[in-house]
Amino acid sequence: MKKVVIGVDVGGTNVKLGLVSATGRVLARTHFSTKNFTHSKTTLINAIIDNINELTKEYGLKKKNISGIGFGLPGLIDPKKGVVKVLPNVPGWHNVALKKIVQQKTKLPVVIDNDVNLITLAEWKYGAGRGYKNLVCITLGTGVGGGLVFDNHFYRGPGYVAGEIGHFPYQDKTFERYVGNKTLTQLASKRLRRKITEVSEVHLMAKKGHKGALKFWKSVAEHLAPTLIGTINLLNPPLVIIGGGVSNNFPFFAPKLKSLIKQKAMPVQGRMVKIVRAKLGNDAGLIGAQILLKGKYNALSQ
Amino acid sequence: MKKVVIGVDVGGTNVKLGLVSATGRVLARTHFSTKNFTHSKTTLINAIIDNINELTKEYGLKKKNISGIGFGLPGLIDPKKGVVKVLPNVPGWHNVALKKIVQQKTKLPVVIDNDVNLITLAEWKYGAGRGYKNLVCITLGTGVGGGLVFDNHFYRGPGYVAGEIGHFPYQDKTFERYVGNKTLTQLASKRLRRKITEVSEVHLMAKKGHKGALKFWKSVAEHLAPTLIGTINLLNPPLVIIGGGVSNNFPFFAPKLKSLIKQKAMPVQGRMVKIVRAKLGNDAGLIGAQILLKGKYNALSQ
Repeated sequence: MKKVVIGVDVGGTNVKLGLVSATGRVLARTHFSTKNFTHSKTTLINAIIDNINELTKEYGLKKKNISGIGFGLPGLIDPKKGVVKVLPNVPGWHNVALKKIVQQKTKLPVVIDNDVNLITLAEWKYGAGRGYKNLVCITLGTGVGGGLVFDNHFYRGPGYVAGEIGHFPYQDKTFERYVGNKTLTQLASKRLRRKITEVSEVHLMAKKGHKGALKFWKSVAEHLAPTLIGTINLLNPPLVIIGGGVSNNFPFFAPKLKSLIKQKAMPVQGRMVKIVRAKLGNDAGLIGAQILLKGKYNALSQ
Repeated sequence: MKKVVIGVDVGGTNVKLGLVSATGRVLARTHFSTKNFTHSKTTLINAIIDNINELTKEYGLKKKNISGIGFGLPGLIDPKKGVVKVLPNVPGWHNVALKKIVQQKTKLPVVIDNDVNLITLAEWKYGAGRGYKNLVCITLGTGVGGGLVFDNHFYRGPGYVAGEIGHFPYQDKTFERYVGNKTLTQLASKRLRRKITEVSEVHLMAKKGHKGALKFWKSVAEHLAPTLIGTINLLNPPLVIIGGGVSNNFPFFAPKLKSLIKQKAMPVQGRMVKIVRAKLGNDAGLIGAQILLKGKYNALSQ
């Protein structure tokens, strides 16, 4: 039996765990709600380890069948030191030596990184970015993040914080403040004149052909376009991958977005770039954890 | 005698030529006005070659003392093929095989690249960016351009067009349309309530302590900040170099610009980044030509 990697994708609301094969397939998965464990980082770490033990037991795995554990976390991570510097949406996480703690408790190799970095690694190696040497991966969700690949090398930046496209200034706020989940539900409520609490509602409406909802997604494309066009002009990527929960609506916003990019990006950049939807969905973070642990990618040094 | 490189910096109004030493010093320089030669590319190329011959003769150089010729051009260049695809501000230049033409006429090795790329190479290797592995170089002039260095490698992008920060959308126009020379003179005329035709006039006024002029440069900082902050958040550069003609006013706009970046950029990015003025001034393009010809730098492959 080939060894598997345990992927742990820590989110603000859920922790997802999965067993990932050597070829990047998720063989088994589980998840639990983060919210019962936010009062202390130790209880959250213990809950993760309990879930790892259960999952590996269910799957009949022994320690010798496991290569290690890879964590994706929504915050500021030092992957080299294995330290979680801060998780903005999970209280109490400041300078946590997560790698060391989990290694000591499990006696397994542990690696950690930012969640968007793992999604980018996964989409690049096993998903929509396969075969590309340069790409930008953008995740649209509660937060808006990004990952960068240049010349077949992942680029984290000297402070491990590159890719923060969500924090590009846009119309006196930031890109994220316009196209993040929270703003989208507010905008949708206003436009559709009813109380929208989840972006998924506008997704279902659009799917059923609701004209207002379809129009709403076109307006989202108009807010996505400027920062994407700027990034495309600046970095000349042949591929932009759009992932994250909001990318479920790719069919509704992409045609308008693509036409705006062709119209307004610089000629060479606009002609070269392909805009595609992420392929790996919710599994991307888990699969990225496997790539990170196996070190099966090149990175630009810091 | 060590061999020298002939640098040719083609601009919309002037062509600058210089002899550059093996250590990146400009030993001699000359220039002529572009405007008499815009009716045909052949006359411009011949004028450049005549000027090269004169300059080398004056300096007592024989062919064996010359390594080759490096061109910087304000437009879309394919440095690999040695082809000028288009020069937006010099009519008649479309798909000109400049490298081949000049090689045949001079029997010397020839390399060509975009002018902002050469400035970036020069500032990185011999100027304000010396010793840095990652940086963004921005040129503020009639056009606004940029060059990118990641992990000690120059990044041109797969279409040789990366770095175009001037074309980042900004307030319904682009960054360049707000902070380029032309707009700055218009803005200055409006703010100072007198006819300003050159940015240098507002420079002199500020130098003399004119309050309106000093206030004007602060307002320029406010227009520079958003796109710079976005780029800093996205790429996490430890250094941003500001060059080009407008950077003469660095002392007037930099304090405000730096304070806006410290205030509004993301914490790690903002703390890490240094904003500095370019060091090589008008010589940067010539010095970059030497680096390009000698190939004394690494680049990310396309």
